[in-house]
Amino acid sequence: MSTPIRVAVAGYGNLGRGVETAIAKNTDMALVGIFTRRDPATLVPVHASTPVHHVDDLKTREDIDVLILCGGSKDDLPEQGPALAARFCTVDSFDTHARIPEHFAAVDAPARAAGTTALISCGWDPGLFSIARLYGEGVLPDGETYTFWGRGLSQGHSDALRRVPGVAAGVQYTIPSDAALEAVRSGARPTLTTREKHVRECYVVLDEGADAAEVTEAIVTMPHYFADYDTTVHVVSADVLAREHTAMPHGGTVIRSGTTAPGHDQTFEMRLTLGSNPEFTASVLVAYARAVHRMNGMGWTGAVTVLDVPPAFLSPRSGAELRADLL
Amino acid sequence: MSTPIRVAVAGYGNLGRGVETAIAKNTDMALVGIFTRRDPATLVPVHASTPVHHVDDLKTREDIDVLILCGGSKDDLPEQGPALAARFCTVDSFDTHARIPEHFAAVDAPARAAGTTALISCGWDPGLFSIARLYGEGVLPDGETYTFWGRGLSQGHSDALRRVPGVAAGVQYTIPSDAALEAVRSGARPTLTTREKHVRECYVVLDEGADAAEVTEAIVTMPHYFADYDTTVHVVSADVLAREHTAMPHGGTVIRSGTTAPGHDQTFEMRLTLGSNPEFTASVLVAYARAVHRMNGMGWTGAVTVLDVPPAFLSPRSGAELRADLL
Repeated sequence: MSTPIRVAVAGYGNLGRGVETAIAKNTDMALVGIFTRRDPATLVPVHASTPVHHVDDLKTREDIDVLILCGGSKDDLPEQGPALAARFCTVDSFDTHARIPEHFAAVDAPARAAGTTALISCGWDPGLFSIARLYGEGVLPDGETYTFWGRGLSQGHSDALRRVPGVAAGVQYTIPSDAALEAVRSGARPTLTTREKHVRECYVVLDEGADAAEVTEAIVTMPHYFADYDTTVHVVSADVLAREHTAMPHGGTVIRSGTTAPGHDQTFEMRLTLGSNPEFTASVLVAYARAVHRMNGMGWTGAVTVLDVPPAFLSPRSGAELRADLL
Repeated sequence: MSTPIRVAVAGYGNLGRGVETAIAKNTDMALVGIFTRRDPATLVPVHASTPVHHVDDLKTREDIDVLILCGGSKDDLPEQGPALAARFCTVDSFDTHARIPEHFAAVDAPARAAGTTALISCGWDPGLFSIARLYGEGVLPDGETYTFWGRGLSQGHSDALRRVPGVAAGVQYTIPSDAALEAVRSGARPTLTTREKHVRECYVVLDEGADAAEVTEAIVTMPHYFADYDTTVHVVSADVLAREHTAMPHGGTVIRSGTTAPGHDQTFEMRLTLGSNPEFTASVLVAYARAVHRMNGMGWTGAVTVLDVPPAFLSPRSGAELRADLL
């Protein structure tokens, strides 16, 4: 492990910042730089020493082992994923669940042609939670799988909230229902409705002159986002919002509840409690950058997902060390 | 998946029974039979239709894809593991942590020579918990890992208990300390002594005429097993022991507590709550038998551990199905 893995970042929002921060915690990696669509001179990285380049410079770079794509799933990754996999080994966090098969195919072809390895849909969900669902189903074929999210700030629902007339600013937390969690852990394998699994809690700052009751009604009845849930709306001042609701906590729980013989319930559970959602997601991407580099060195090319990656490839340590210390 | 994977079982205690039961829940597998050192005519399998053979018959069998070794780690597996890996793809549950590197080497050589794949130290610890420790350390390099066991019946400690003069029968439960779990989940990364992490609870039936106080004192001061823990001894009747303490529950929790940036604590946790320890362990062995068969088909031979196995190999479903449903 004497030559560091040369990692670069494409895109610099919360996730890109998290990747920059995470690479510094992995001593077997070196950060080549951040590649941005903005004017590089205007970007302020976490570490002043991090090189910042224009994304067009990627066309000629030959010194990158793995490129971590930190753009959005809606517009950036469907275009950047295939284009950049034709030049680099990549890791992305594409998280539009329904379009994952399509994204896989779009990235697979150029990656195979170029001999690169492109890991898609990495992070915690999709990502570590997908792995938990797979292990759960694999070891307990007679069972049910449940995924709960939160307590956590949901970006999509917070955006929806802010589109409501009269809302100046706001955030939304998704919270798993304690009763639902308890029912699942009991081994009863309940059938749970959307409303029963999670509740939604909103903190909003009103526009001047907006009516709190009207805004609340508009939020709790919004189809797709809030109407199917027990939603609570708290009106707060801009100060309170700034002081108490700027962190980006998240997390959740995957539970496989199964039976191996009559009366013998078995529960497998993976749980995350995250102080910073983007930083944790970034840490997962960085660990998988190591795996991608190793897989490419073995000739394992094309699109892959976390489900394909041997756990040992996430570690800089040798197989013998891992067997002695962790097994 | 039209041809079932032909699985056989060597050794028939609680674990072997669990494997027989688990194979019936996996429709892509067929149970070739149980191979025992006892007189096959005296063995009563879970399913009357399960073929039972003498273990010597393994010398000439050619119809086994994967052999699951269900003997003990102390005497059986160190001998059977290398011998049988020279003839079959195998899965074992060797769980003497300190001797795993030695067992790996002993199995690796004959497996490589024969072109078989031999997965050692499978189950939940070593096994799924080893994987949790690896994922935790991989994605949160700045952190600490904690493993708690229980609430569960510990076979080794129950055996120790029964060797105490005056004890006619008994069982021991290992129980994680709530205070320790809470301290770890807080992100404080505490340093915990052996005594602080777990407590031990014993239920014993006394020999006729034995003195309860003397027996209790002998138990709680027993070095290695009980002296380092807060140990409680309950004297019960043979009836109560038979009625309330014959199940074999177990479980535990692996927690990785890490930090991605100052003030941003992140917690990754895997938790098992098992109604039957041997049946769950057996279910894990069976899922990994599927993986071993697949790895061998790809030419991936020699000794391997759960840390080497791509999660997707535990499933009978295709990569495309897994990506669409679980990712």
